[in-house]
Amino acid sequence: MGKGFMKRLNIGVLGFGTIGTGVVKILAEQRDLIAQRSGVELVVTAIGDLDLTRDRGVDTSDIRLTNDARSIINDPEIDVVVELIGGYEPARTFVLEALQAGKHVVTANKALIAKHGMELFPVADSHGVTLAFEASVAGTIPIVKVLREGLAANPIRALYGIINGTCNYILSRMRDEGLPFEEVLADAQKLGYAEADPAFDIEGIDAAHKLAILGAIAFGTPIHFDQVSVEGITKITGQDVAYAEELGYRVKLLGIAKQAGDAVELRVHPTLLPASNPLAQVEGVFNAVLVDAQYADRTMYYGRGAGELPTASAVVADLIDIACGRQVAPLGVQPGVLRERPIRSQGEIECGYYLRLSVADRPGVLATLTRLLADQGVSIEAVRQYGRAEACEAVPLILTVHRTREAAFIKALDEIRAQPFVGADLTWMRIEEN
Amino acid sequence: MGKGFMKRLNIGVLGFGTIGTGVVKILAEQRDLIAQRSGVELVVTAIGDLDLTRDRGVDTSDIRLTNDARSIINDPEIDVVVELIGGYEPARTFVLEALQAGKHVVTANKALIAKHGMELFPVADSHGVTLAFEASVAGTIPIVKVLREGLAANPIRALYGIINGTCNYILSRMRDEGLPFEEVLADAQKLGYAEADPAFDIEGIDAAHKLAILGAIAFGTPIHFDQVSVEGITKITGQDVAYAEELGYRVKLLGIAKQAGDAVELRVHPTLLPASNPLAQVEGVFNAVLVDAQYADRTMYYGRGAGELPTASAVVADLIDIACGRQVAPLGVQPGVLRERPIRSQGEIECGYYLRLSVADRPGVLATLTRLLADQGVSIEAVRQYGRAEACEAVPLILTVHRTREAAFIKALDEIRAQPFVGADLTWMRIEEN
Repeated sequence: MGKGFMKRLNIGVLGFGTIGTGVVKILAEQRDLIAQRSGVELVVTAIGDLDLTRDRGVDTSDIRLTNDARSIINDPEIDVVVELIGGYEPARTFVLEALQAGKHVVTANKALIAKHGMELFPVADSHGVTLAFEASVAGTIPIVKVLREGLAANPIRALYGIINGTCNYILSRMRDEGLPFEEVLADAQKLGYAEADPAFDIEGIDAAHKLAILGAIAFGTPIHFDQVSVEGITKITGQDVAYAEELGYRVKLLGIAKQAGDAVELRVHPTLLPASNPLAQVEGVFNAVLVDAQYADRTMYYGRGAGELPTASAVVADLIDIACGRQVAPLGVQPGVLRERPIRSQGEIECGYYLRLSVADRPGVLATLTRLLADQGVSIEAVRQYGRAEACEAVPLILTVHRTREAAFIKALDEIRAQPFVGADLTWMRIEEN
Repeated sequence: MGKGFMKRLNIGVLGFGTIGTGVVKILAEQRDLIAQRSGVELVVTAIGDLDLTRDRGVDTSDIRLTNDARSIINDPEIDVVVELIGGYEPARTFVLEALQAGKHVVTANKALIAKHGMELFPVADSHGVTLAFEASVAGTIPIVKVLREGLAANPIRALYGIINGTCNYILSRMRDEGLPFEEVLADAQKLGYAEADPAFDIEGIDAAHKLAILGAIAFGTPIHFDQVSVEGITKITGQDVAYAEELGYRVKLLGIAKQAGDAVELRVHPTLLPASNPLAQVEGVFNAVLVDAQYADRTMYYGRGAGELPTASAVVADLIDIACGRQVAPLGVQPGVLRERPIRSQGEIECGYYLRLSVADRPGVLATLTRLLADQGVSIEAVRQYGRAEACEAVPLILTVHRTREAAFIKALDEIRAQPFVGADLTWMRIEEN
């Protein structure tokens, strides 16, 4: 292959952290393979970072290192800017300026796309360049490509994603080893699976960023991160994980995007899944997205949601698509046909529910609970009482109820909480049977 | 959106069977969605089939129906020919002529691509048109797109596929219900999951067609269907499925493509997988492909491998890619850089092995077996003897051995078969621990 005549794509990388190092490494190691696949030579010519001295273990002798990001954004030789700084700013400003300078941009930054995508996409469009973000959702799983291209013939009925590896790791170990949340979290931090400040992950924000992006692509709507309902995993106890297991369920933090007539649901919360659901088998730091599409039916995509090389692999795939001139509208439909759709409030959704409460172990308790639920049209699926305490002591009671409107369930809960025989440590979670 | 000014792609369909009907149905039902996604109107203008009278339940009032395939191939108004006839001929001739007439071709025909792809791809290339075949492998799972684009940055280490739904359905029911092979096969035929002549599926030929295609894309080699080692599932007994289960394995018909230094392995055979392997969970008619890639690590793709609408969904995705001008080399690398690689014989591969034999229940038997295996450097992982028979009666003995070269295992087997205390009904299968 006559390299002298081969087309070349010059790449500037902003952010020389874990993923940036991975991108430089893959492009160096696979120069020939990538040229064979794309017909283009992909070359990193400049890297911008505040720290230019730390050894990342990759050869940068042919690469211009700078701590002036704008010298990359404005470099006329550079065709594509790869943004791997993360967070909202200065990433947003740099990406905006790069697009305005007529450069393609590839990013792994879900926060940026979830919050500022709707500002950035039209800028890319009007400058005739691509803003690619496959690596921003579910790491190495090509879920953006699957939704925009592989399933392009399908209206999407729903998607369910395990899209935060930290939470899945914590929940998997709580189940496998019967450990409490705090202990596994501390361990995950030691192992580098959770940040020093883990709030973004364990409060569900990171999953909500990704769900907002996937939901918009699935339903052809603008991205509305602020309209995603979010609950994290911090209140889940080892007890609940074990009770769920006994009932045939696994607890997972799911991102759920569902079509409900013309409206859509966008929600992130701990969810009980039947153990036979393909997503229930996804353990540890792995991610997976199950898509329910009108013609393709249920398909699932599984892989590493984070990590230096898996994420860099997705960044490089975007670079190869750009090198090959393969273009797709950012949210999968032609500019201008995105359509607002009503987003359902949590009260309007319908799920099954798991309820754990501690009750005084005396006659009539179950009759009262059953009546309070029935008054709201909520029907019980299963009841389990654990142990039998001495008189007047509280025992744990587990209830699952059939699919019902959440507002009805919450109303019944309020009544139940007000009963004198019900302890304060009441917990509930949603069940998805699909 | 001003439809009067929208670009239009005229489609001719050859073969108005199940998949053809699905394609016509999807394009009619999703005309608007597809136009929003592609910016192009996709219109079926002609359908060729020998049977033009049967009612397929779709509106064909605006479509020219013909039993002259060449009137479609030579229709100057038609941009894309969709080949859904199946089999080698006349599909090969029609596709060749359509490409030569400067038309893109989309096909779901794995036999055609596996056997004649290497003849057809250069014709497409020299006429500047696309020959797309996503629907030919694993139905609705976009595995061709994933390998060629999503994982384009990765050398592929191995891929493992459950790519024949008929076999997976049979094996799943044998396990779940303890039924014998013949009974489940007969049932599958009644339910339409297996053909009247099931040989193509149960002998592994269909899986081998698909594996040949996937292996070529994974490793950048030409397609060599005739070099795939193939074993079907006809010799598997309910007993073996049950014993495997007790040992913590599930029996699956796998297509395996593995890199081994510069050589590659291409093989289809019944395989024992640890129950914890994500592929082991894939049940019934579902397909799945697990890819082990250098940077992305293990990813898995799961969905329906057949059926009217799932397969048609993949055909329409290819049509949308063509409408959008998204081009990829058929086997993922630029024309001219495909490279022959040696294909390992079965004797050279390395696996673990499961062995069932019936032996006379008397002292010294196990010592002899152990020595015969050890003589070939084969080490035993587990032994189970079932039951204890009356003197001189045979009892089943199950052995599993650690990873070893197949030639060594086969040599030990030959010695074992020659022992007077070993019954004739000896069975063995390969184990993949990954």
